Amino acid sequence: MMPTARGRFITLEGAEGVGKSTHLPFISEWLRARGIEVVQTREPGGTPLAEGIRGLFLSCGGMPAESELLLLFAARASHLREVIEPALVRGAWVICDRFTDATYAYQGGGRGIDSAWIADLERRIQGHINPDRVLLLDAPVAIGRGRVAARRGAAVDRIEEEDDGFFERVRDVYLARARQPGYRLIDASGSVEAVQRLLVEALGDLIDPCRP
Amino acid sequence: MMPTARGRFITLEGAEGVGKSTHLPFISEWLRARGIEVVQTREPGGTPLAEGIRGLFLSCGGMPAESELLLLFAARASHLREVIEPALVRGAWVICDRFTDATYAYQGGGRGIDSAWIADLERRIQGHINPDRVLLLDAPVAIGRGRVAARRGAAVDRIEEEDDGFFERVRDVYLARARQPGYRLIDASGSVEAVQRLLVEALGDLIDPCRP
Repeated sequence: MMPTARGRFITLEGAEGVGKSTHLPFISEWLRARGIEVVQTREPGGTPLAEGIRGLFLSCGGMPAESELLLLFAARASHLREVIEPALVRGAWVICDRFTDATYAYQGGGRGIDSAWIADLERRIQGHINPDRVLLLDAPVAIGRGRVAARRGAAVDRIEEEDDGFFERVRDVYLARARQPGYRLIDASGSVEAVQRLLVEALGDLIDPCRP
Repeated sequence: MMPTARGRFITLEGAEGVGKSTHLPFISEWLRARGIEVVQTREPGGTPLAEGIRGLFLSCGGMPAESELLLLFAARASHLREVIEPALVRGAWVICDRFTDATYAYQGGGRGIDSAWIADLERRIQGHINPDRVLLLDAPVAIGRGRVAARRGAAVDRIEEEDDGFFERVRDVYLARARQPGYRLIDASGSVEAVQRLLVEALGDLIDPCRP
């Protein structure tokens, strides 16, 4: 029997209102239609511990930036060990709503935490596991925030309450990181259909041409 | 007006069953009787976020050692900023049930996490705040575990379920750390009264002789 090829690890990144929750299931279905087993998950989250951490993270006001950072990597360690790594080993593809790029963008850019510390935690917690493809959905801050405001009433979480300067810093870090190999910058300001065409283009080279 | 002298930071350490919960209120009352404002607290805990983390920490089975470590320091950052440092600044004494020595003992000794990583997090999260006195309640593992078994039925937490080897490693690290200046090793195998005499001796030099 042929050994199973390791699955691919794809992350979808971007600030508030860029359309991650619309496009994540689209990507999963597009891959499933090509016969690929897909595990769709999110950060922080994906395990009982990490979902518990997510609850604290989004609701506990006034926490130090350092607590945010450490909670995210505590959740990530559990998510990697229990969900992401076992899925990749058995050949499934993992599609994750946010991962370590978000930590660089939000806790590094937004909160001002030293990126060298984030890199140290990344190395300790992730080891050799890094996304094969990072899809960065990008739109001007005003567009993303306008969409969030349109779809919600008073119910905003602790992060969505930050000011525009915070989200500009988040976007700047995301854009800088997206210049690295393996990243794809997707213009998220167009229609749903236009964005989904760009997403398919950004994944095409990962698909084995012998697949159906 | 004289500036307020900074309060003292005292931690009570030790493994399961050494009597921390009996002796912590004794220490607080002994200090209060000397006119000292005392803030009695615990780790992980002491703030809404840190108590939430404590709940996850004690109940979520099978978490990676790295998650334990990062959760503890996430809670500690909040506890230091919101409770410990403000109390010390206004001149109160903080009496804390476990602190970073427990992280070295449990996550370092018990779980095998590299102590250099713990030291790095200690420096980043605590800065200049360290206990003025660490009171280590020590007893052979069999005595402590026997007391835990006697006081409980089936209700043990995730840590108390570890085997004797785990608690021997915890004790070894505690005993090694207690050789440092500022630490006091207290034989916790005697009677409550005998232990409390030792605790009073171990605090005497911190008390201003001009206090009542």
